[in-house]
Amino acid sequence: METITEQQAQGLQAKFLRLRSNKAFELFVVGVIIFSALVVGAKTYDLPPYVLSIVAWLDLAVTLFFLSEISIRFIAEHRKRDFFKSGWNLFDTLIVIISLVPIQDSEMALLGRLVRIFRVLRMVSVIPELRLLLNSLIKALPQLGYVLLLMFIIFYIYAAIGATLFHEINPVLWGDISIAMLTLFRVMTFEDWTDVMYETMDVYGISWLFYLSFIFLTAFAFLNMVIGIVVGVMDAEHKRMEQELHPEPSLSELQQEIRELKAMVGAMSTREKH
Amino acid sequence: METITEQQAQGLQAKFLRLRSNKAFELFVVGVIIFSALVVGAKTYDLPPYVLSIVAWLDLAVTLFFLSEISIRFIAEHRKRDFFKSGWNLFDTLIVIISLVPIQDSEMALLGRLVRIFRVLRMVSVIPELRLLLNSLIKALPQLGYVLLLMFIIFYIYAAIGATLFHEINPVLWGDISIAMLTLFRVMTFEDWTDVMYETMDVYGISWLFYLSFIFLTAFAFLNMVIGIVVGVMDAEHKRMEQELHPEPSLSELQQEIRELKAMVGAMSTREKH
Amino acid sequence: METITEQQAQGLQAKFLRLRSNKAFELFVVGVIIFSALVVGAKTYDLPPYVLSIVAWLDLAVTLFFLSEISIRFIAEHRKRDFFKSGWNLFDTLIVIISLVPIQDSEMALLGRLVRIFRVLRMVSVIPELRLLLNSLIKALPQLGYVLLLMFIIFYIYAAIGATLFHEINPVLWGDISIAMLTLFRVMTFEDWTDVMYETMDVYGISWLFYLSFIFLTAFAFLNMVIGIVVGVMDAEHKRMEQELHPEPSLSELQQEIRELKAMVGAMSTREKH
Amino acid sequence: METITEQQAQGLQAKFLRLRSNKAFELFVVGVIIFSALVVGAKTYDLPPYVLSIVAWLDLAVTLFFLSEISIRFIAEHRKRDFFKSGWNLFDTLIVIISLVPIQDSEMALLGRLVRIFRVLRMVSVIPELRLLLNSLIKALPQLGYVLLLMFIIFYIYAAIGATLFHEINPVLWGDISIAMLTLFRVMTFEDWTDVMYETMDVYGISWLFYLSFIFLTAFAFLNMVIGIVVGVMDAEHKRMEQELHPEPSLSELQQEIRELKAMVGAMSTREKH
Repeated sequence: METITEQQAQGLQAKFLRLRSNKAFELFVVGVIIFSALVVGAKTYDLPPYVLSIVAWLDLAVTLFFLSEISIRFIAEHRKRDFFKSGWNLFDTLIVIISLVPIQDSEMALLGRLVRIFRVLRMVSVIPELRLLLNSLIKALPQLGYVLLLMFIIFYIYAAIGATLFHEINPVLWGDISIAMLTLFRVMTFEDWTDVMYETMDVYGISWLFYLSFIFLTAFAFLNMVIGIVVGVMDAEHKRMEQELHPEPSLSELQQEIRELKAMVGAMSTREKH
Repeated sequence: METITEQQAQGLQAKFLRLRSNKAFELFVVGVIIFSALVVGAKTYDLPPYVLSIVAWLDLAVTLFFLSEISIRFIAEHRKRDFFKSGWNLFDTLIVIISLVPIQDSEMALLGRLVRIFRVLRMVSVIPELRLLLNSLIKALPQLGYVLLLMFIIFYIYAAIGATLFHEINPVLWGDISIAMLTLFRVMTFEDWTDVMYETMDVYGISWLFYLSFIFLTAFAFLNMVIGIVVGVMDAEHKRMEQELHPEPSLSELQQEIRELKAMVGAMSTREKH
Repeated sequence: METITEQQAQGLQAKFLRLRSNKAFELFVVGVIIFSALVVGAKTYDLPPYVLSIVAWLDLAVTLFFLSEISIRFIAEHRKRDFFKSGWNLFDTLIVIISLVPIQDSEMALLGRLVRIFRVLRMVSVIPELRLLLNSLIKALPQLGYVLLLMFIIFYIYAAIGATLFHEINPVLWGDISIAMLTLFRVMTFEDWTDVMYETMDVYGISWLFYLSFIFLTAFAFLNMVIGIVVGVMDAEHKRMEQELHPEPSLSELQQEIRELKAMVGAMSTREKH
Repeated sequence: METITEQQAQGLQAKFLRLRSNKAFELFVVGVIIFSALVVGAKTYDLPPYVLSIVAWLDLAVTLFFLSEISIRFIAEHRKRDFFKSGWNLFDTLIVIISLVPIQDSEMALLGRLVRIFRVLRMVSVIPELRLLLNSLIKALPQLGYVLLLMFIIFYIYAAIGATLFHEINPVLWGDISIAMLTLFRVMTFEDWTDVMYETMDVYGISWLFYLSFIFLTAFAFLNMVIGIVVGVMDAEHKRMEQELHPEPSLSELQQEIRELKAMVGAMSTREKH
């Protein structure tokens, strides 16, 4: 097999791009991936063996399509080093490699199954809208990190108080701080939290205040911050896109232009008087 | 019965439109539909038979009103083919046809009851505000589809890990991937999720991380994306309406006008100097 | 007691208004109302009788303050008929009348207790911020009505399907449509909904689709519409306030002014040439 | 030890500020705090004693760093009184003092553990993003207070009705108003609320209306108001920052400039005619 040049590769890449943008092709590939995922997942469905083997072949065909597409993309790249600077290129390459790992059901079944799971991520490669969604999620991640840190502090303080006061009442729920934090997470999800509360209220009658203040604090803080992040990230994204699509002058620029005009008229007016 | 011409039909249609916009008439029709729905639903309420028969007659009258209205609308349409291009026309026609299906309680009771259920959708035909609400829901649907696909991927990966690791612990909950996905949906709704967790924590002490990361991921992803879609769709709708009601020049247009003015003053100034 | 004239009343009203705006006075009144509400609510707290009688006297004093204030407001009104056109005036009058109903614990205890409950609404009279909050809630109410109607339709259709199919499996949960609607509301709040589902899945294996589609539909529709309403109402309110505080010219007005300027310069330019 | 002057202190403060802004240093300090918190929390983790003593020394070093930093900040302040006017200065000082309280595990173990808990708040001191988050939470607090007051009124009215009507059915849940309010909070979190409802529905068949109206009212009111507050506070914050970063002229200012220009052209035009 002869090697292909960069230019040939760029021509091929354009063709692949056109094929990929084709809605019918996209639907077909997504269908194969989902069906193949479901087949892997639910072996108990009594499908005739020839269906299974067709699905397996289609699944392999999809993977080979991805493999050739990403190879072409790599060859078409002018500076090979830049190829790995894009997070999505790395992601696609990894997914293809994972999909190509041969799996024998007999040996290393556990690891094999776990590896096979991530094949479903090929869907993210093939659907541009999913990439957009993931992109906006990833952009919100750093801010989410700080929210989680603040939640950790709130949880830690309440857990420490709980572990100190309620330790004797029920060591299974309040044994040490880490267990108490898990119990508080359970309270935050409202999962049988009244049972936890009634138990401690028998000893400390006022302990409803502990639970209610915790629920209000976490619910309000969480809602407040998540909504804040979401709307903030979205707003920024929106404005950026708006500005790209319909670049508008700023009010300051308009003011500048009016002032220039004023200077011109002012100069004319002065000259006229003389 | 003589056939009516398109023009007569258009006159009649205007009258129907006026009748429909009448708030009192709308309330009456909605009342009949809801009452008729409740009567169908709760046969056990011991209503005297004459009330039931009055409701049945009123219900029939409402259906006949819809039938005549939609017939008039069809006749008034200039090109009959266009009539079926509007989704709402198709919807209304379907509802009227469903409402006219005769129902005998004795035979085919099951199918009869199921058909009768959809009569309540006449309410959507009669209340314009409900159509607006549905319209905005339908507009958000394609984006929601991608969100559901991403959720499916997250669920699938976690379900596959769960089915692989926890299979032996409780086959009822983690037997295969499809059952594991249902279990994870249950965890996502916080329904007795701690019982599911405590069970696996006895074997794998670290498995709380599996549940907590899943809850955070799905809760955050879901909130993030739903709020994103809602605010996005609403914002676009808002701007469109705003622009229709109060068409405002863009800042670029203002800039254009100021520049034209500048050119004029510049030309005057040059002429003056000579 | 001599009757006071409208003008005297207006003077008094201004004094009352100043007293009411006083933060310390407001805090004192709110304190009395809350404390009095708690005393009524929790008779079991072993408070010494003299404290109870002090609270009762303070409570009466607050009510008398409200009575005199609203009387003055009524007298100060120029056209008595207009007084009852304001919803808040009616509300305040009603609350004062309810607060003045004498309550003997011995007879008509049930009605007496229920009447006494609404005394806590005096708090809404005294705190302007609560009125603002209630105002914005009331403004969102009509749109919420349509959302509830749409939810009713969704519930009705699912309840009818459920009552038809699952009737034999568990008549306590799916006996008729009204009971099925209550069961579906329970499913919507995630309250032991898996028990409901597992029960029907034993007979109809596919019935998880019924529950999942219902949960997604109602959760998404509810979130979508509530957020839509809230942000919509708030946005409109915001813009109205903004426009009142900082009235800004519209872009169209600016365009108009620039065009007038252009016409002036154009006229000058033409005259000059001659 | 010689005392340092204000100017020397200001030089040192600048150095501390630079050290603090260093991302690597911040990460190190946060790591020490979290690790130290976890060690305190989960004594059961079998860590070798030398790890524990290293962590203890690092923890002390972090506290001493805070102590010297805040001392420098205090000395650098021109008017010592202003130092305590900043809420954050007070907060930092308090945290350092709490962190310096010596803890012997043997005596006063309970108080010692409680005091040690608040050491985790040093994290807020060291991460500026957490301060921003807390700031926006604190700004939303006064409005949240009114929302809680309104919720209290709704809870009180429903609790009073519940305590009056359902008192005999289950005194454990509806014994007096304060217990009934706790029960209603449980209903609001959907925790086994159907059990509470089914119990009263056996006596009062219509009581589902009580629960459903309560759930709708509180869920809608809470969502409405929390979202309202969050978006409102965020919006104001956003505009303020936007205006600071990119100060733009208002449309009124532009209108003013255009009018001045018009007056100038008008004057020229008049002079020309003569």
